[in-house]
Amino acid sequence: MEDVLRQLLPPAEVAPQRLHEAMRYAVLGGGKRVRPLLAFAAGELCEADPQRVEIVAAGVELIHAYSLVHDDLPCMDDDSLRRGKPSCHVEYDEATALLAGDSLQSLAFQLLTQHRLTEQAEAQLEMVRLLAIASGSRGMAGGQAIDLASVGKALSMPELEFMHIHKTGALIRASVLLGAACGRALDQAGLGKLDHFAKCVGLAFQVVDDVLDAESSTSTLGKTAGKDASRDKPTYVSLLGVAQARALVGELSADALEALGGFGDRAERLRELAGFIVSRQF
Amino acid sequence: MEDVLRQLLPPAEVAPQRLHEAMRYAVLGGGKRVRPLLAFAAGELCEADPQRVEIVAAGVELIHAYSLVHDDLPCMDDDSLRRGKPSCHVEYDEATALLAGDSLQSLAFQLLTQHRLTEQAEAQLEMVRLLAIASGSRGMAGGQAIDLASVGKALSMPELEFMHIHKTGALIRASVLLGAACGRALDQAGLGKLDHFAKCVGLAFQVVDDVLDAESSTSTLGKTAGKDASRDKPTYVSLLGVAQARALVGELSADALEALGGFGDRAERLRELAGFIVSRQF
Repeated sequence: MEDVLRQLLPPAEVAPQRLHEAMRYAVLGGGKRVRPLLAFAAGELCEADPQRVEIVAAGVELIHAYSLVHDDLPCMDDDSLRRGKPSCHVEYDEATALLAGDSLQSLAFQLLTQHRLTEQAEAQLEMVRLLAIASGSRGMAGGQAIDLASVGKALSMPELEFMHIHKTGALIRASVLLGAACGRALDQAGLGKLDHFAKCVGLAFQVVDDVLDAESSTSTLGKTAGKDASRDKPTYVSLLGVAQARALVGELSADALEALGGFGDRAERLRELAGFIVSRQF
Repeated sequence: MEDVLRQLLPPAEVAPQRLHEAMRYAVLGGGKRVRPLLAFAAGELCEADPQRVEIVAAGVELIHAYSLVHDDLPCMDDDSLRRGKPSCHVEYDEATALLAGDSLQSLAFQLLTQHRLTEQAEAQLEMVRLLAIASGSRGMAGGQAIDLASVGKALSMPELEFMHIHKTGALIRASVLLGAACGRALDQAGLGKLDHFAKCVGLAFQVVDDVLDAESSTSTLGKTAGKDASRDKPTYVSLLGVAQARALVGELSADALEALGGFGDRAERLRELAGFIVSRQF
């Protein structure tokens, strides 16, 4: 995946150099690559050609990377540390970080349209649309907006869930569905199961994030720890406490695995990833 | 076009409301709509279904609107006035403006993939790719980056042209080519002529912009006038003086019209628009 991203990003020597350097800085050399891994695992479920899955995996990771760059800007979370390194706007400058994020979003859509991903071009248009919706105001960016509006407020559990289904869940779901879409089509029931798996895993990922933010050190996370509490952000930990938040992770994980029940061995990689996501320490 | 945009944007009543309001604020109620007009005129050249052209016209206008929102942010041009109204980040806040811009970009790609624009889905993927390239680091956003880097520097004419071919030219070119792509395919020579027309008009548009910034009042422009000189930005006026810049507009306009020579009456709307662009006062 690292090689794929390195090759798909514009070379740092090509003008505008500083912008391209900042784009590469924001994407390369760090990150768990959870979304690409999910795309590959879902691709395996549908016997997809890995060279096709590479492109959608890169696309979702570029969208994710752009969102982190914009998130870290002073007008948003104002965070100077990301993946153990200075945030993009600290290493470069705010304007360059803003444009690097903007350009990473464009590049994701460029990649998904310039490589062949399915037998039917029609189906590929549908894939691009899925990524656009997952990224936009009714997906990830919308979740960010709800997140910002929630600082200092008491949210109910359904409100917190609504926020995270958008903020983190939408792109994780897109990773799984797009990886699968590169391969043999699932029937409606199978697609529903996979979608349910993706939703459970996406939510579990966020609950774990909240627990780690509350319990880990900045050096382990590679980003500023304890940020939620210091900014008075509602989280699963602030609403439920650590013990109940952990219990929720267990429930979501069981629910995710159950959804994969009918798929047999082809879903083994997805099961492994669900295990990684709920037990990760960073 | 105003009705089309109003209908295609997410309703302000749908959550997240404030984000959707900001998106609508940034797009509706103002703007010359030069890019949509060019798309419609190019569509007419190729006898395209206007309902298809509407979608690409909206797509390029959303990309344009997002770029203005991000441009006006304090870390970029820091401008508080746009289209005679407070800039998006002044009317809302910086974080909301950032996310509104991000979401407008996603929405453009959503629109271009959820409506049928051509007979062949294959060709439509190519259209989406064209818009992605025109928007990204080797198009509009890249031009912005070069623009930022050029403040306070002496550019040569080729360097200034390179900047504007990206910053303004790429999306104007995309407007023309995408409008045409909704209709009957032009042959290679015809496409080359249309492309040349678009490039000339795009550059002329920018030279006129520079002249207007130097010579008009803020109230006429609806955005802060005299900004280039006050920020020590290289422009066609700073390089050539007003008289020579005007002469250049005349040359580019003649060149643009010549490129349309072989098209006959079908290109009448494109000719009118070229005339509007070079003689506009705002």
